[in-house]
Amino acid sequence: MTAVESVGEFRFECGESIENLRLAYETYGEFDGDNAVLVCHALTGSQHVSNAPSSADHDGDDLGDAVETAGQARAWWNDVVGPGKAIDTTEYYVVCVNVPGSCYGSSGPPADGPDDEPWGTEFPPVTVGDWTRAQRRLLDRLGVGRLHAVVGGSVGGMNALDWAKRFPDDVRRVAAVATASRLDTQCLSLDAIARRAITTDPDWNGGDYYGDDRPSPADGLAQARRIGHVMYLSKASMGRKFGRRAAGRDAFGDGPDDPTGRFFPYREVESYLDYNADSFTTRFDANSYLYLTRAMDEYDLAAGYGSDAEALAAFEGELLALSFTGDWHFTVEQSRVLAAAARDGDVPTAHHVVDSDHGHDAFLVEPESVGPPLRDFLADGVGGRAVRDEDDDDGPPGGRGRGPDRAPVHASLFPG
Amino acid sequence: MTAVESVGEFRFECGESIENLRLAYETYGEFDGDNAVLVCHALTGSQHVSNAPSSADHDGDDLGDAVETAGQARAWWNDVVGPGKAIDTTEYYVVCVNVPGSCYGSSGPPADGPDDEPWGTEFPPVTVGDWTRAQRRLLDRLGVGRLHAVVGGSVGGMNALDWAKRFPDDVRRVAAVATASRLDTQCLSLDAIARRAITTDPDWNGGDYYGDDRPSPADGLAQARRIGHVMYLSKASMGRKFGRRAAGRDAFGDGPDDPTGRFFPYREVESYLDYNADSFTTRFDANSYLYLTRAMDEYDLAAGYGSDAEALAAFEGELLALSFTGDWHFTVEQSRVLAAAARDGDVPTAHHVVDSDHGHDAFLVEPESVGPPLRDFLADGVGGRAVRDEDDDDGPPGGRGRGPDRAPVHASLFPG
Repeated sequence: MTAVESVGEFRFECGESIENLRLAYETYGEFDGDNAVLVCHALTGSQHVSNAPSSADHDGDDLGDAVETAGQARAWWNDVVGPGKAIDTTEYYVVCVNVPGSCYGSSGPPADGPDDEPWGTEFPPVTVGDWTRAQRRLLDRLGVGRLHAVVGGSVGGMNALDWAKRFPDDVRRVAAVATASRLDTQCLSLDAIARRAITTDPDWNGGDYYGDDRPSPADGLAQARRIGHVMYLSKASMGRKFGRRAAGRDAFGDGPDDPTGRFFPYREVESYLDYNADSFTTRFDANSYLYLTRAMDEYDLAAGYGSDAEALAAFEGELLALSFTGDWHFTVEQSRVLAAAARDGDVPTAHHVVDSDHGHDAFLVEPESVGPPLRDFLADGVGGRAVRDEDDDDGPPGGRGRGPDRAPVHASLFPG
Repeated sequence: MTAVESVGEFRFECGESIENLRLAYETYGEFDGDNAVLVCHALTGSQHVSNAPSSADHDGDDLGDAVETAGQARAWWNDVVGPGKAIDTTEYYVVCVNVPGSCYGSSGPPADGPDDEPWGTEFPPVTVGDWTRAQRRLLDRLGVGRLHAVVGGSVGGMNALDWAKRFPDDVRRVAAVATASRLDTQCLSLDAIARRAITTDPDWNGGDYYGDDRPSPADGLAQARRIGHVMYLSKASMGRKFGRRAAGRDAFGDGPDDPTGRFFPYREVESYLDYNADSFTTRFDANSYLYLTRAMDEYDLAAGYGSDAEALAAFEGELLALSFTGDWHFTVEQSRVLAAAARDGDVPTAHHVVDSDHGHDAFLVEPESVGPPLRDFLADGVGGRAVRDEDDDDGPPGGRGRGPDRAPVHASLFPG
């Protein structure tokens, strides 16, 4: 169950402040002083990473009000996080925080502002750096200084990288899954088109659509989700799953609503996208979608430094970049560039490439591919048994020395 | 200049008929009885393929009314079609017909129907097969029996393939450029999303938006175009052209219209997409966009046959499939599959792959790559000098025998 903690005044990177930042979070497992793993959720994810019993499932202490967050996303990494799973909650104290700007209980556009009305677009613009700083603030409240690891996928992977850049002494291992140092131009374009779908929906109304008597911009948000959904899948997986088949009579949705459209099939893939988009509009806020995609688009690991390598140079921990061959949202090549930069910054690094045609979604739907390298990276760093660097084809899996100097890597750089 | 010809009652594949199908077209060069080349335009193209003087630029004979079509697309293949160019209008009689359902003078949703009001969505659904049949009808009027060649790119390439399937004795050479036997699931999805942008625009109004006092669904059509535009470009070309740069103050568009959006850059790529989308809405009709994308999505070369090979088996001519390595809308792999099917159908075939990172647009913007193989294919078929089959790496360019039997191919299969 989600807890919500108020962490006081918070100054965003844009320069604006709010009086009291509230952060919704979940924790799993017990903190032993050295076993905290921060998991960073993706764009539309939430703090609810696992169905494992949440250790924030308490009330009556001085931390966090237990709340039931309506409409929360399902446990998005339940196959990876839990007792006995790759991120083992019997071993690690797992923390996941809903990022500011989102809509699952943390402060953001749909949450109430100081006047007890929803913030709407008066909520300050957020950045990935704000997420990291907010997480740091919450971890302070939880008594967590150094993190054993930060793990995140997609824009959550940018969040994880931001930890290595912003708080280089505070984290021992960073796993950046299906992510990149920055978004490419094609994805920037599609995100901008998705936002435009929302802002041109008349029901968006400049971001002011809250209240029971107001329609929300469901058409625009649904369109944004459809575009996003295509970005998460690969040509191969879409083709295999749906082909060109027409949907049956009991398919979701009315199909095309123009007379001519009815002559042509309503295809299974369209029905699938519609179904998903429709359910998405019941669980996600349109303004939050604008805020979070802007944060993702704006993120640039090198910002404030000359290069990715310099941004990572102060990081004393180890980095695992995990990428997927069928992912065109965050490509293998982008992870390769990231890994090379990290090595240039003297960060012991492995770039583990998973052969998959699931597209970007692979990191969510292939726990069997993602789990083992994550598990062993958390346990033993880049020398972990199932961690395979792409440049290390000939050696034994999880072999030696992926730092630029190929020196053996110690399992623990942060004694006790 | 465009001419418009009325070809009488036309029964569409859907079963509906209209009393008088009007076809806008242009011709270039002089017909000598054996030199006609039909060029098929892409989705949003027009009959205006070249700035060369049009031989339909006449009036006073019994064919075609010369008309000035307002807002027509610019000459879309001027670097390829014209005097001395790859499709040489001093040698060939080039005909290009605006397809039914489009908006450049042929019958379609925005054209006046029997009651002198725009058809709107009362216009019958159109298919690529209808385009082919309409072109056949017009060519009959022009006195053209057999075509020397049909050349088309993108959905125009599907149109070209449809000629080989539907009128296999009427065409000597088919050049199918940046196309496929059918669209893949990913592109079907993006087209469906683009249509949804139009049909959820309140100004679309069920397709009834014509008349000076009515707003047209410009937001929706602009969104559809942005999505299409991303499909026409490659990751590499977008990255090289725009990167992540912010647009200057004089950039097109107001940029994002939400307060928070203004904190973030309006990027060059967004400005470019906006500029293009805005100009597109002044030249293209939203209903036509629905009609033509549906025709494209529905096209399946194998329809009515067991396979692509069987669909092409009656074709006695030669086929050139021209594909581009950076094209993810119509991929090299799809052309490979097409070429293999054509060979299975005993069609002498070359699959010429152009190494390009321009994406789908390559066929429009790389005349230096597209022109030579097209020129030599028109002149000498698959044995043409600059026609290079991808399986023929070791031989001289434009080498021998790409039929399944590797037999030499005669330059003219249709004497006289």
